Amino acid sequence: MPNMEISLEALRRRTGVKWTDYPEDVIPAWIADLDFPVAEPIKQAVNDVMAREDFGYIARDAQLKLAQAYSERMQARCGWKPDPELTQSFGDLIQALRAAVATFSDAGDGIVIQTPIYHPFLDIVSEMERLLVDNPMQVGPQGYAVDVEGLKRSVTSDTRMLLLCNPHNPTGRVLTRRELEQIASIAIKNDLIVVSDEVHSDLVFPGQAHIPIASLSPAIAKRTITLSSASKAFNIAGLKCALMHFGHADLMHRHLDGFHPRLLGPPNVFGIEATLAAWRNGDDWLAALLEQLDRNRNRISEVLSERAPEIRYFQPEASFLAWLDCTSLELDSAPYDFFLEEARVGLSDGREFSSYTDHFVRLNFATPGPVLDEILDRMMTAVANRRRRAG
Amino acid sequence: MPNMEISLEALRRRTGVKWTDYPEDVIPAWIADLDFPVAEPIKQAVNDVMAREDFGYIARDAQLKLAQAYSERMQARCGWKPDPELTQSFGDLIQALRAAVATFSDAGDGIVIQTPIYHPFLDIVSEMERLLVDNPMQVGPQGYAVDVEGLKRSVTSDTRMLLLCNPHNPTGRVLTRRELEQIASIAIKNDLIVVSDEVHSDLVFPGQAHIPIASLSPAIAKRTITLSSASKAFNIAGLKCALMHFGHADLMHRHLDGFHPRLLGPPNVFGIEATLAAWRNGDDWLAALLEQLDRNRNRISEVLSERAPEIRYFQPEASFLAWLDCTSLELDSAPYDFFLEEARVGLSDGREFSSYTDHFVRLNFATPGPVLDEILDRMMTAVANRRRRAG
Repeated sequence: MPNMEISLEALRRRTGVKWTDYPEDVIPAWIADLDFPVAEPIKQAVNDVMAREDFGYIARDAQLKLAQAYSERMQARCGWKPDPELTQSFGDLIQALRAAVATFSDAGDGIVIQTPIYHPFLDIVSEMERLLVDNPMQVGPQGYAVDVEGLKRSVTSDTRMLLLCNPHNPTGRVLTRRELEQIASIAIKNDLIVVSDEVHSDLVFPGQAHIPIASLSPAIAKRTITLSSASKAFNIAGLKCALMHFGHADLMHRHLDGFHPRLLGPPNVFGIEATLAAWRNGDDWLAALLEQLDRNRNRISEVLSERAPEIRYFQPEASFLAWLDCTSLELDSAPYDFFLEEARVGLSDGREFSSYTDHFVRLNFATPGPVLDEILDRMMTAVANRRRRAG
Repeated sequence: MPNMEISLEALRRRTGVKWTDYPEDVIPAWIADLDFPVAEPIKQAVNDVMAREDFGYIARDAQLKLAQAYSERMQARCGWKPDPELTQSFGDLIQALRAAVATFSDAGDGIVIQTPIYHPFLDIVSEMERLLVDNPMQVGPQGYAVDVEGLKRSVTSDTRMLLLCNPHNPTGRVLTRRELEQIASIAIKNDLIVVSDEVHSDLVFPGQAHIPIASLSPAIAKRTITLSSASKAFNIAGLKCALMHFGHADLMHRHLDGFHPRLLGPPNVFGIEATLAAWRNGDDWLAALLEQLDRNRNRISEVLSERAPEIRYFQPEASFLAWLDCTSLELDSAPYDFFLEEARVGLSDGREFSSYTDHFVRLNFATPGPVLDEILDRMMTAVANRRRRAG
């Protein structure tokens, strides 16, 4: 069984943004890093590059190998076989998203997004002067769902693209076949280009299954660009390696006309080798990770129902992000500020995810049990103290 | 003294393009990899990242640190202090070159290049439908020089940019202050944007000094983009980390208007840490490298003058590339093909470097003495055999 134990001290020695952005008395639970040891196959891959001293110009077929590994993994996990020849690789997903928006839309064009959403989606739309066509996720007693009727209504003749995030960040929803079929049908009917960020797809909990939207039919595939990377599930965001799969050669040629592969830049040798190792040999580690994440999502439910039932939380179906609606806490400030000041926990601020989610925070629970317990205890204590002060 | 010894067997275990592109009986001496052990400070940096398990999202100030290290190094080595706030980092130089050409010129605009040149310069100009304004290097009995009078004549009102490569690849020339001043004066007079690829600047042999063209005056700085990377001198091309310095804020803003930093993508954690280690702690290794390269450039002179004086070779003033004029060998085929077929040595083909250098080859001599001797012996034997057959 892979070791998932790591101490807070070891985590604090990490020099990435998660562990350096706040003062030492704050426990960070924001950006989508995992607080777990790196998977052994990835360490082995890095060591192998070191041993061979393979620091020079990368082999010609490296990017194709990456595309093949992706295709094999998708076939094994989802029964979908993306053509490696229609797959480009580069540094990260945000690059790909920007490139796709630039290639397939113009300033002023409408772009559909299901908010709340990982903020780079919103940044790209506003910075590139596209029109945000907001199709907020609906919330019911069972959790979040795509508002299909709202989607039908909001798409107009000026709408060019639909940016999907599935599994959805921050709600943790794994879209069902039914939801995806409805979205695909609307995309086809309205001639939309779909960009589907599926970077969380390796992190689906038992009971759900990830379905790549491009796998539904040739009709949706030919208008879909699927983005993926081992960066989230295997915690290698700093290694910069991601893939962009085009469901049809025409799409890829339009992309390549706009962006020469050398402009976006190929991934680096460590990113490539770590990704290959993760996808080929990382599944034991991934299983151990999912067990820990499953325990953690349950733990959050237990603690909240016991100590702060006012916070609305639907267990995510994938990934490691708890999307917490703190409206009923009736705080005087945004819950992000409240928990930072009163609990010394650094969450992600709901204000980043839409214009209407200022009463939300996103908690990254990819952390060992004791650290999560400390985070939750700090948050619950702050809520209790405030209750006392208010009462 | 850093170890520069490495066996042919260890080199053949490398999986990059240099050692995998030809059959095993060919010795590769083409792409600008170094056949030397990786510098210890770089290995240490990679090991440190591993030990801290720093594979996640990179610290916010990582790119600024890189820019500061570059600025400090330039100040120490060239007395030039590029502003870190006007320096962007990304994957590789070719990205930057493409981005600069896209930002500062339009299709049909003239772009001056001193041929022969590292082929991506030519590819970028032709693929982006710019007009190649060719200003060939002049050759005299002492070697290559910039044709300043030719440059004056060739620049017209349609010329927008001048792409400089200094030290020059493939001739190995380190441009003199006088040459650079003349080029700068023409650039200023004709309102040209200058992109100066200075990636070989750490590899200047004793007797010459690298002068960044942007260091000459504020007037030339404000129109100059300087490109650099530790990739060539420290053999980390596969780690993908390069810098783009803008001599004025206006230039950088024009660039950022065209290319959001997230579109070109930030460098990865290993590229950043390896570059910092190389620039801060790599100078002992660099000195050992230059000693070996100096011996090798002399060795080539000795062997050629003894065994093939028909091949014209001027010792490079920087780097590890011998630009060999084989015209007087009067071969029936291109020397690239001849030496590949008859000597089983894989050189770079002169045809890649200009339309008129089909009788040239470029020999990468960054290899241990015994390997270079084997390369030269194979080449000289092939020349002798041909002489015998012809005679």
